[in-house]
Amino acid sequence: MFEDRLNAYISEVDKHLEKLLPAAFKVPAELHKAMRYSCLAPGKRLRPILCMSSAEAVGAHRKTVMDAACALEMTHCFSLIHDDLPALDNDALRRGRPTCHVEFGESIAILAGDALFALAFESLAGNPGEPARIVQALRLLGEASGSDGLVGGEVMDILNEGQDVDIVTLAYIHTRKTGALIAASCEIGALLGGGDEAQVETLREYGRKVGLAFQIADDILNETSTPEMLGKAAGSDRERQKATYPTIHGIEGSREAAKAAADAAVEVVSGKFPNSEWLQDLAQFAIDRVS
Amino acid sequence: MFEDRLNAYISEVDKHLEKLLPAAFKVPAELHKAMRYSCLAPGKRLRPILCMSSAEAVGAHRKTVMDAACALEMTHCFSLIHDDLPALDNDALRRGRPTCHVEFGESIAILAGDALFALAFESLAGNPGEPARIVQALRLLGEASGSDGLVGGEVMDILNEGQDVDIVTLAYIHTRKTGALIAASCEIGALLGGGDEAQVETLREYGRKVGLAFQIADDILNETSTPEMLGKAAGSDRERQKATYPTIHGIEGSREAAKAAADAAVEVVSGKFPNSEWLQDLAQFAIDRVS
Repeated sequence: MFEDRLNAYISEVDKHLEKLLPAAFKVPAELHKAMRYSCLAPGKRLRPILCMSSAEAVGAHRKTVMDAACALEMTHCFSLIHDDLPALDNDALRRGRPTCHVEFGESIAILAGDALFALAFESLAGNPGEPARIVQALRLLGEASGSDGLVGGEVMDILNEGQDVDIVTLAYIHTRKTGALIAASCEIGALLGGGDEAQVETLREYGRKVGLAFQIADDILNETSTPEMLGKAAGSDRERQKATYPTIHGIEGSREAAKAAADAAVEVVSGKFPNSEWLQDLAQFAIDRVS
Repeated sequence: MFEDRLNAYISEVDKHLEKLLPAAFKVPAELHKAMRYSCLAPGKRLRPILCMSSAEAVGAHRKTVMDAACALEMTHCFSLIHDDLPALDNDALRRGRPTCHVEFGESIAILAGDALFALAFESLAGNPGEPARIVQALRLLGEASGSDGLVGGEVMDILNEGQDVDIVTLAYIHTRKTGALIAASCEIGALLGGGDEAQVETLREYGRKVGLAFQIADDILNETSTPEMLGKAAGSDRERQKATYPTIHGIEGSREAAKAAADAAVEVVSGKFPNSEWLQDLAQFAIDRVS
């Protein structure tokens, strides 16, 4: 039943993404094909679903935040395309398909990422609602994806390859590279759903913990899984001597940390929202494959 | 006197950029240094100045649109960093300095561009003013920089290297690669300055024509100037068999076209605004070096 509901949300997101993305035949077709290729590839849609669910938590219908939800997926997707580039992680496989630059060439991949990022802001600006809340959501998206968010985390990740990394640096990377956008997904959903300040802050805190749980699980899977299971490279963190949870805490310690983070997320929303159980299931789902 | 006023505007922009950009020592320092290196390099600041001047045209003080003005420069700068990358134009010189990837490496350059683009939206969202107008401005920035704007123009520019390009395709490239953001600079300035619909549309039209004049002049200079004069590569369009005005219309024909576009811009604002003469001088300035 959790799966059915999850799939229903995913299908709503995919339909709306399909509408927001420019048609594949529209000039320049090569660019639009690349944007669609990467953004419509099957994914968990964790960020949009957290956005929609946070809007529901504060009493709004999730359809009222669909533009925002899709903007978050586009931002995530832009970051994946750029992270996979030869100059960065140089990955060839993503979501079970060749990465964007392998399929379309490096120049188109860079620009498809840029265009998706632009479309994210344009889409979020088009979300219905009170303008002051939309402005605030746009500012949050800029912050979460910029030099003190996603991009900053990616830079620290790269700069620390092959280094002996301490817990503080690892936390820096995690809270920004994955945590910032996931926390912003919850915050933006709650904000545009009309939540009051306390609700927005609670859901942001929930998002932070879900993000941490998810990133630890991702680190563990990179170490213990196969490319067939992941749809992307496995063992690549170790090859590139990346700073990860398992390198510092070991696999067992990491499993415990992931569970602790998911439990903390569950605790944050416990009894506070009409859909608390669903939010709790989502937190568990973030560590599904490692628990 | 025109020069003095221009330099005063430039200095205001540079001071505000300096404030908006993260400090060079802030972690991750390498990223913030790269952002500042590219964005604070001496430039004409054409887009911010057009934004400020358009706000003044509709009766606002230019200081009320400084965040927006700087957001436009950041967006321009993000596009320059990415255009210069090895996978795209592979340029080594920009604004008289080594390009961002030459100075900081390719991975940092890609991410510095991304972070500047994020900061552009964050800064624009922080501009004071009526939220509904800010939302509209943010949407305009997304459109102007996305797949039907700046990025779309860049893609067509790359895809058409070495091709026989007709006037329609050249116009497509020009109106998007340079024109879209310059037109948006005027439109956003007028909008945030509190202009009515007719004023905003007039200034957008003025921006379109200034953008065209500027791009033609840029094409001519690439053909006729030296790297020392330009602070960036010269003759590179011809080397890469880019579609430019001179390849289709010749140098003389291009000079005439640039003058015609600047004249048209002058005409659009003639007698309509308290600062019409200044706007007209700016249009002339766009073709300064080729007229």
